[in-house]
Amino acid sequence: MNFELPKYKKPNFEKAHLVSAPNVKTETVIKDGVCPEHYHGTTIYPEYFKIEGKWVLAKESRMDCVVVVKDSHEVEVKEFRNLKVGDKVVIGRTEDASEGIYVYVDGFTGEEAGRDVFAFRSGRSRETAYSKDYDSLYDVLRHEKEKGYIVWVLGPAAVFDHDARSAMAALIDHGYAHALLGGNAVATHDLEAGLFNTALGQDIYTQESRKDGHYHHLDLLNKARRAGSIEKLIEEENINTGIIHACVKNNVPIVLGGSIRDDGPLPIVISDVYKAQDAMRYHTKKATTVICLATQLHSIATGNMTPSYQVVNGEVRPVYIYSIDVSEFAVNKLRDRGTLEVTTIVTNVQDFLVNLKNNLTK
Amino acid sequence: MNFELPKYKKPNFEKAHLVSAPNVKTETVIKDGVCPEHYHGTTIYPEYFKIEGKWVLAKESRMDCVVVVKDSHEVEVKEFRNLKVGDKVVIGRTEDASEGIYVYVDGFTGEEAGRDVFAFRSGRSRETAYSKDYDSLYDVLRHEKEKGYIVWVLGPAAVFDHDARSAMAALIDHGYAHALLGGNAVATHDLEAGLFNTALGQDIYTQESRKDGHYHHLDLLNKARRAGSIEKLIEEENINTGIIHACVKNNVPIVLGGSIRDDGPLPIVISDVYKAQDAMRYHTKKATTVICLATQLHSIATGNMTPSYQVVNGEVRPVYIYSIDVSEFAVNKLRDRGTLEVTTIVTNVQDFLVNLKNNLTK
Amino acid sequence: MNFELPKYKKPNFEKAHLVSAPNVKTETVIKDGVCPEHYHGTTIYPEYFKIEGKWVLAKESRMDCVVVVKDSHEVEVKEFRNLKVGDKVVIGRTEDASEGIYVYVDGFTGEEAGRDVFAFRSGRSRETAYSKDYDSLYDVLRHEKEKGYIVWVLGPAAVFDHDARSAMAALIDHGYAHALLGGNAVATHDLEAGLFNTALGQDIYTQESRKDGHYHHLDLLNKARRAGSIEKLIEEENINTGIIHACVKNNVPIVLGGSIRDDGPLPIVISDVYKAQDAMRYHTKKATTVICLATQLHSIATGNMTPSYQVVNGEVRPVYIYSIDVSEFAVNKLRDRGTLEVTTIVTNVQDFLVNLKNNLTK
Amino acid sequence: MNFELPKYKKPNFEKAHLVSAPNVKTETVIKDGVCPEHYHGTTIYPEYFKIEGKWVLAKESRMDCVVVVKDSHEVEVKEFRNLKVGDKVVIGRTEDASEGIYVYVDGFTGEEAGRDVFAFRSGRSRETAYSKDYDSLYDVLRHEKEKGYIVWVLGPAAVFDHDARSAMAALIDHGYAHALLGGNAVATHDLEAGLFNTALGQDIYTQESRKDGHYHHLDLLNKARRAGSIEKLIEEENINTGIIHACVKNNVPIVLGGSIRDDGPLPIVISDVYKAQDAMRYHTKKATTVICLATQLHSIATGNMTPSYQVVNGEVRPVYIYSIDVSEFAVNKLRDRGTLEVTTIVTNVQDFLVNLKNNLTK
Repeated sequence: MNFELPKYKKPNFEKAHLVSAPNVKTETVIKDGVCPEHYHGTTIYPEYFKIEGKWVLAKESRMDCVVVVKDSHEVEVKEFRNLKVGDKVVIGRTEDASEGIYVYVDGFTGEEAGRDVFAFRSGRSRETAYSKDYDSLYDVLRHEKEKGYIVWVLGPAAVFDHDARSAMAALIDHGYAHALLGGNAVATHDLEAGLFNTALGQDIYTQESRKDGHYHHLDLLNKARRAGSIEKLIEEENINTGIIHACVKNNVPIVLGGSIRDDGPLPIVISDVYKAQDAMRYHTKKATTVICLATQLHSIATGNMTPSYQVVNGEVRPVYIYSIDVSEFAVNKLRDRGTLEVTTIVTNVQDFLVNLKNNLTK
Repeated sequence: MNFELPKYKKPNFEKAHLVSAPNVKTETVIKDGVCPEHYHGTTIYPEYFKIEGKWVLAKESRMDCVVVVKDSHEVEVKEFRNLKVGDKVVIGRTEDASEGIYVYVDGFTGEEAGRDVFAFRSGRSRETAYSKDYDSLYDVLRHEKEKGYIVWVLGPAAVFDHDARSAMAALIDHGYAHALLGGNAVATHDLEAGLFNTALGQDIYTQESRKDGHYHHLDLLNKARRAGSIEKLIEEENINTGIIHACVKNNVPIVLGGSIRDDGPLPIVISDVYKAQDAMRYHTKKATTVICLATQLHSIATGNMTPSYQVVNGEVRPVYIYSIDVSEFAVNKLRDRGTLEVTTIVTNVQDFLVNLKNNLTK
Repeated sequence: MNFELPKYKKPNFEKAHLVSAPNVKTETVIKDGVCPEHYHGTTIYPEYFKIEGKWVLAKESRMDCVVVVKDSHEVEVKEFRNLKVGDKVVIGRTEDASEGIYVYVDGFTGEEAGRDVFAFRSGRSRETAYSKDYDSLYDVLRHEKEKGYIVWVLGPAAVFDHDARSAMAALIDHGYAHALLGGNAVATHDLEAGLFNTALGQDIYTQESRKDGHYHHLDLLNKARRAGSIEKLIEEENINTGIIHACVKNNVPIVLGGSIRDDGPLPIVISDVYKAQDAMRYHTKKATTVICLATQLHSIATGNMTPSYQVVNGEVRPVYIYSIDVSEFAVNKLRDRGTLEVTTIVTNVQDFLVNLKNNLTK
Repeated sequence: MNFELPKYKKPNFEKAHLVSAPNVKTETVIKDGVCPEHYHGTTIYPEYFKIEGKWVLAKESRMDCVVVVKDSHEVEVKEFRNLKVGDKVVIGRTEDASEGIYVYVDGFTGEEAGRDVFAFRSGRSRETAYSKDYDSLYDVLRHEKEKGYIVWVLGPAAVFDHDARSAMAALIDHGYAHALLGGNAVATHDLEAGLFNTALGQDIYTQESRKDGHYHHLDLLNKARRAGSIEKLIEEENINTGIIHACVKNNVPIVLGGSIRDDGPLPIVISDVYKAQDAMRYHTKKATTVICLATQLHSIATGNMTPSYQVVNGEVRPVYIYSIDVSEFAVNKLRDRGTLEVTTIVTNVQDFLVNLKNNLTK
């Protein structure tokens, strides 16, 4: 493998308009969770803020947040709801340095060959050729396994099929996951499959609907609540397959955000969605690759809080975001909501996971 | 209009197997939120429980819950997480009265003419003929306006278009809504439209993307958080159009359940999803008609907590559930997750709302 | 109504590069249906060809065809398969006049306000605000009714529902259709509904599957084949509702192209698809507005043969193309295959037709 | 592999109602292509007709056709349009032998275990567990390779991606295809890829839009028309990859039915769709397995003409039909139009083909 991360080309801070740019202005928060007017809202791109004459890069960024100046060397990107009285928020809605705010979109852009004005098939859909995207993803994941931080975002469809569930567990076993984000459903049905070999009562291999199968997820949830933790449940019920089992075995952290659809829930689920956001962002702050499978809710939530770049060992590098779903609308929505740098693949996540396992775990 | 509610045909309790059926067995909860084994899980149908020789109907039911015997005349249908130490939970997984549990599915079933074994087009899809479903819905809503409790469940798509948003507001003004359930997004973008005439920065009539439009929803949220309530926001910002405005004006209660996708959120949003479930179920316990538009998350959540019947003034009557979405998968999922009695219409909710306004508000 | 057609701004032929451009080169066809190499392929835009020092506009154009010089004043846009020995085909793959070929895309372009670099929701989907598109379409159709040539392209979904089928018939009765393109299915099921009130055996209002209903379309086809023409069938069977009936009554020409899916077929169906193309293009050569409903096959076929402009009474005017389908993929595909100027609406065509009837026929 | 074809259980012709059944009645065709009234229409199931006291099975059947009695041992299943004056058509709309017509649906039905009344997830969708369907399909194809007749029905999406196109070619090379059905587009873009490595101008591996790429398919078609046959084209242009190349090399017959969408067309395309149907049915009469990929038009056309059983060496055996598409609507439509015995898989055909290649060609 000769995969190399693209090099980040810093802005040329010697350029006249950057040299002459003023320092940013700030205003002070006077009520927790409420921002001064005319705040600057963040994008997914690297942003620099001029403070005491020096350009300071926002680290651990995310879009649709505001920027709080900590000191002359550091800014923090904060959600509105996390603002505290006294926070000094950057003011201004320009991005060209004229107010000391510089949004820099060209850090990883190479030269592009001239294109025809007209081309068929410019969007991405079921008819896009995905071979190369798969090959690139394999390269990325082999690299990230050791040198990155791979965050998976899973919907329940990832555990409804025997081979897909096994494939995901194998990927975790082989070190391709550093964190798992999801909801109550994916974990419940994965554990249901560990206990009964079913999901919502249907055998995940034979497709048979089992007698009283509609009790399975409720029984699983009840057992989990009695056990008090998923670790305890796995032990008590001797569960030894599946995704949650693989995470627990390999110490891969799991964040499950609650939703109004939940039965149960499992003891691990975070019932306050904004605390859940904070727990998710703990991982997206470190993420270098994010893979979202078959969940619009969790994919958009995660996409919203993932920037296009990451600072690792002082170097700026890109963050790779993938979204896989059988529906164009679902994968495009991520882009439509501002996550512009996502690579989308329109397919059934079952096949996607089996492909990854076949190419990465042997 | 000559619409009449179908009459409920009570079970014939003189039947031998109902007469000879034993009383239900119960077991006692010994840990909050954890159920005894072999509990009976509820369905969407009317269920009767034999207690001290008498059959007691579960009122205010919902599926996938358990049944707690209160006294000889009353049972309560409870979520697992709401179980308290000491609750006496009905035990047994039969539904035929042999354990004192009788699930009764024929209360509203008339005689059906014999059908051919084979017929084309048995499912419901974009190609189903919807004229009659519309006509029936108009009848239902005219009836329910005075004599029922109509709960709307809205996704953001309901407010992205000028005419659809106005149509929904008109329906509220005309008394066709008794409660509104949704999330942060639908309310935020509705209020954004009230303030800027945009949704996510795009004009809801002209489709133009406004300059700095991507700040609109953030600005709206920030103003709302400063105001402290949506009522205050509406007053301060002089918002006088839209769905939220119509609800506030007409005293229609609003429940907004939080999600991990939320920016802001609005002050009214319930951040704990299980508290949000309780707030939603407060309304579904009273609901006689539920209409779900373009939101898989909220539709399934609401569907899960809505039974197929309601007891109104001592009479059992059906609950009408409608799900409207442009995607077959979305509307079918409700059925796939157990909400069997739903009527689905595959179309854009914009047209659906305009149809309702045209037929109901003049 | 104050609708006005946008004015066409001719190219400024005084510009130096147009003045200095050479005459086009041509090569001669030496085998029927086979083109010389390096031919120029047409686009959907107005194209001018320099012949004997003068710029000649291609009339009755369509994309992906070649240009045959007739004389010094006229060129003809021809399908490859229609080329004849001796035809003089324009050679050259530039579009900037450097080879005497000038593709002119700015004829109807007004000034556009500067846009933000970033905006949410740039594509068109179920979440696009369609109110204004509807309003514009009503204006267009009122104008075209008298002064244009409106071509409808219908899939069978347009006749599966009672209200939609009646709405389309009403639009025809009111003069809003100058030609109808479709396949065997839409006409068969429309006539089936005329005879049995069913489509594929299912009642188009009550949704009931009729006994032996799967025989209905076969019986209809057999009766039509016996009658020998749809006019004769309508007379013999006393059919007096529906779309085909309305076309026959109002002398609206119908072109039905055959497909490998057809049962029957109806006597009117053209079994040779390239003869069917020619019959369809006869109408698209005159079309000023094209409305495609719920048929990917016929929509793309028609889209392919419809240019973005039309010459009417010596004036160049735009052609309006609409595509309505419940699937983003279906409507986007038209654009993806080169029909760039289409306006797409993502909804169920049933509602679309009822909307049009409500706004245009009273 | 221990795959075995299910055994066909013949009807018990000793049963009283079969013994006492009358001979079929027939009426004679008096106009070509027009059927007597009250004809019997065929289903996808084995059907027996009592002639001179003996039950005669219809071989080479298909649904929605009529049955012509040839002699006392043989009936022929014919399309209406193929009826000839003098044909003796079976009359009667019962299926229970009372008119000498016996539709037999239980030939392959085993005992089924009792099922719960209620089960989640009864339909087939993106969330169905497909592992076992894949495993079964591998078994079926290994068997059919030698002992069956495998018909592939391909839409253009099968050739838009490099790995998928190679996978399909490999399957052909390894003997897994006995006939290929499709349209002009799949063959054109496959050959375009053979010549330019593009489909509609876009590189099938790198996804790059090539300069003047929108000319590629037109150039390919023109070259093919000049060459006069695809064999000649392949030779002249040195095409040595792809699906059409593999078919030609391995003498796998290709039937391409024309459509109104076609550019060109290729010389091999059958322009009369009813002749194309006859050419397709030539293969479906022999088919024992049919696999339909990403084409609604061709899949439904083929499904319509494929029965659920086949007579091979005097034995009745099942026909396996698979339909693979990323859209539930597309795969379900086959079933909705009467092809009840189809196994559907909702995924991108690219992954499907790569899966088959990985499991069958090494």
